[in-house]
Amino acid sequence: KTLHETCEKYGAAHRYGQRSDETGMARLTLNDDDIAVRKWLEKEMEKVGCTLKVDSMGNMFFIRPGSKANKALPVAMGSHLDTQPMGGRYDGILGIMAAVEAMRTMHDHNVQTNGPIALINWTNEEGARFSKSMCGSSVWSGQLSEEEAHSLIDVHDKKTTMGQELERSGYLGKMKAHHTAMPLAAHFELHIEQGPILERANGKVGVVQGGQAYKWIQVTINGRECHTGSTPFEDRADAMQSAAKIIVMSKKYARKQGGLASTGLLSVFPSSVNTCPGKVTFTLDVRHKNDASLEAILFEIEREAERICKEESERGTKMDWKISFASTAVKFNANCHSAIQQAAERYVKPEEIMPIISGAGHDSCAASIRCPTAMIFVPSKNGLSHHPEEYTSPEDCAIGAQVLMDSVLTYDQQ
Amino acid sequence: KTLHETCEKYGAAHRYGQRSDETGMARLTLNDDDIAVRKWLEKEMEKVGCTLKVDSMGNMFFIRPGSKANKALPVAMGSHLDTQPMGGRYDGILGIMAAVEAMRTMHDHNVQTNGPIALINWTNEEGARFSKSMCGSSVWSGQLSEEEAHSLIDVHDKKTTMGQELERSGYLGKMKAHHTAMPLAAHFELHIEQGPILERANGKVGVVQGGQAYKWIQVTINGRECHTGSTPFEDRADAMQSAAKIIVMSKKYARKQGGLASTGLLSVFPSSVNTCPGKVTFTLDVRHKNDASLEAILFEIEREAERICKEESERGTKMDWKISFASTAVKFNANCHSAIQQAAERYVKPEEIMPIISGAGHDSCAASIRCPTAMIFVPSKNGLSHHPEEYTSPEDCAIGAQVLMDSVLTYDQQ
Ligand SMILES: NC(=O)NCCC(=O)O
Ligand SMILES: NC(=O)NCCC(=O)O
Repeated sequence: KTLHETCEKYGAAHRYGQRSDETGMARLTLNDDDIAVRKWLEKEMEKVGCTLKVDSMGNMFFIRPGSKANKALPVAMGSHLDTQPMGGRYDGILGIMAAVEAMRTMHDHNVQTNGPIALINWTNEEGARFSKSMCGSSVWSGQLSEEEAHSLIDVHDKKTTMGQELERSGYLGKMKAHHTAMPLAAHFELHIEQGPILERANGKVGVVQGGQAYKWIQVTINGRECHTGSTPFEDRADAMQSAAKIIVMSKKYARKQGGLASTGLLSVFPSSVNTCPGKVTFTLDVRHKNDASLEAILFEIEREAERICKEESERGTKMDWKISFASTAVKFNANCHSAIQQAAERYVKPEEIMPIISGAGHDSCAASIRCPTAMIFVPSKNGLSHHPEEYTSPEDCAIGAQVLMDSVLTYDQQ
Repeated sequence: KTLHETCEKYGAAHRYGQRSDETGMARLTLNDDDIAVRKWLEKEMEKVGCTLKVDSMGNMFFIRPGSKANKALPVAMGSHLDTQPMGGRYDGILGIMAAVEAMRTMHDHNVQTNGPIALINWTNEEGARFSKSMCGSSVWSGQLSEEEAHSLIDVHDKKTTMGQELERSGYLGKMKAHHTAMPLAAHFELHIEQGPILERANGKVGVVQGGQAYKWIQVTINGRECHTGSTPFEDRADAMQSAAKIIVMSKKYARKQGGLASTGLLSVFPSSVNTCPGKVTFTLDVRHKNDASLEAILFEIEREAERICKEESERGTKMDWKISFASTAVKFNANCHSAIQQAAERYVKPEEIMPIISGAGHDSCAASIRCPTAMIFVPSKNGLSHHPEEYTSPEDCAIGAQVLMDSVLTYDQQ
């Protein structure tokens, strides 16, 4: 109920049905809706006795005190409230809402934990507005510098940086965004699977073993503008043709090695029907379960792209290949896994609990570098995500939320 | 000199060298620079005794009276002052500037012609801002309705129509844009070749026999947004992959039949690195010297594109194919040709005069439907056009201008 209420108030978009909850979301990092839902979260956490610390990346840490002085570091439940431009209601949001519910439940039942418990809202997990995913959590983990993160430029408004938006929003906290300033005992995250694996296997709870490796490449093809009607093919250096060939080829090479390749952004210059583009920029998002295979795929794609640019546009085009984001494959923590496993066994049948690898990146990937971490997946209907119709049933959300709280409480007892 | 002076004042852009004339142009139809250069042209034509009529497409007709009452219809020198977003200084502009020079010369030498002589600045020849080329001249010829032209939408600002910009600029004339309201005796146009043929053959003057056929297609591919990391290829309906394959294929099919195919515009939705696009729109500009071959190419491309959408994206994508502009192959007039031929023979060697087919569309193609028409081409350095570095030497410009005036005077005597 809280999930749908807050989605409706803060960033609902892309209606696909009549019911009030039949929309997707467009709550981009630090836009007005993201600011408003953060304010809502502050009020809600105040009600249940949490104190807030905000760091210099706008990461929000809500902390509920523990009872044992020798257990100073919080066990955290973290995820994100930002969405894709055509996002759904569950990606990230479910993780936060389940943590809100856990905090409320502990408060209502006066639960005493040994150590503190934290709820974390990580900033710009999606990387949709500022083009690095797991952005706030990666600065916290030390994998990304604060400077670089602050200077990221809005994909759709080249005049705005993330630093400016942190300032404008009031979420540029004084505390340094770093694991040394805000150390954690552990990090748990409930998330929708975003793929079809659990649903197809009739699984209810995925015990996430780790995340696959991925890199984002910013590819720029420089050719030469020319007239589409009076320029013979032999006289062209057609950036659009080179780009199209590379996009087709990238998928073929990734598939051959069991990986993925996708292009989500593409821009054409100068953008006129009867001018062959002199410049095309696009992104490649390439993934594989293991680091070495990812490197092998990228090596092949880059080499073949160079060949296409040189040989397959009559006058030759030039390629610039820039890695804009990288995340290595991640393995989660065995103690965290066993806490999740124990918790899950209370609510679903053993055969409904599955080990699974995450195809997507998550704040937990960054967190796992610095503290014991694991994730809980619940099924996504039709495997759909980054789509307005993303859906997980209320029952599955409830199971996930219950397993999240129980895992944290179990871990706290260890 | 006038050409470079006006280019520098009204719309210079894309500097590529130190000299003041080493820039291209970005004088898009009815933008502030286009309005300013129109005002300049009005003043200049007033000085040489021309009267102005503006029609409801903003086409400007400057008329110098003739001496014989039985020769009421003007022989026109027409072209356009608008440019591509990354255009050069000669495409269209040379034709107008040569006509200005002809008007000045006739004025200075008190030349008496039998019929009136007109200088025409046609609106939106490029089709770069409002996506129909030869736009003003096609309304005049009756090939395009005024209504449709006025409702064309700015490619880069979906809120602005051509009708609004005509209104804003003050160039929404009272006279109906139609050949019946402003009939012409003939239409001559000097233009740069925009291709490499004359230069490679050491030609100086191209006697343009006609223009090739072309169509513009607005292609929309609808797939399904999905997560780039957690969605297996088998579960994708990837609009970007389908679009890229169609762009590569279109060139292959056009080449096979001796035609051309190009993509100058492409947009991706929702535009996020880690979301596979659910929708991609792009243009195809397809050309061939004859109408039947153009149709054959388009038939093949459309059929193959349908197959790609159905079979080559795992879950299938859907294509929408909309013809947004069409121009049939055009043959120019023999009497006009012979006037040009006679004129050219005065200034260059016979072997430097060449018959040639225009790869590009021109206002003369539209005009030729309603009056005897022909064009004069001068060489383009490296065949470059729709590019800031488009260049034709001062000597070649002068030859072209001289041949234009002489052709008109010769035709007037017939
Ligand atoms: N979970 C999720 O959608 N994360 C965004 C980062 C990614 O691209 O994997
Ligand atoms: N001459 C010229 O560039 N015309 C634009 C129309 C076309 O695309 O051919």
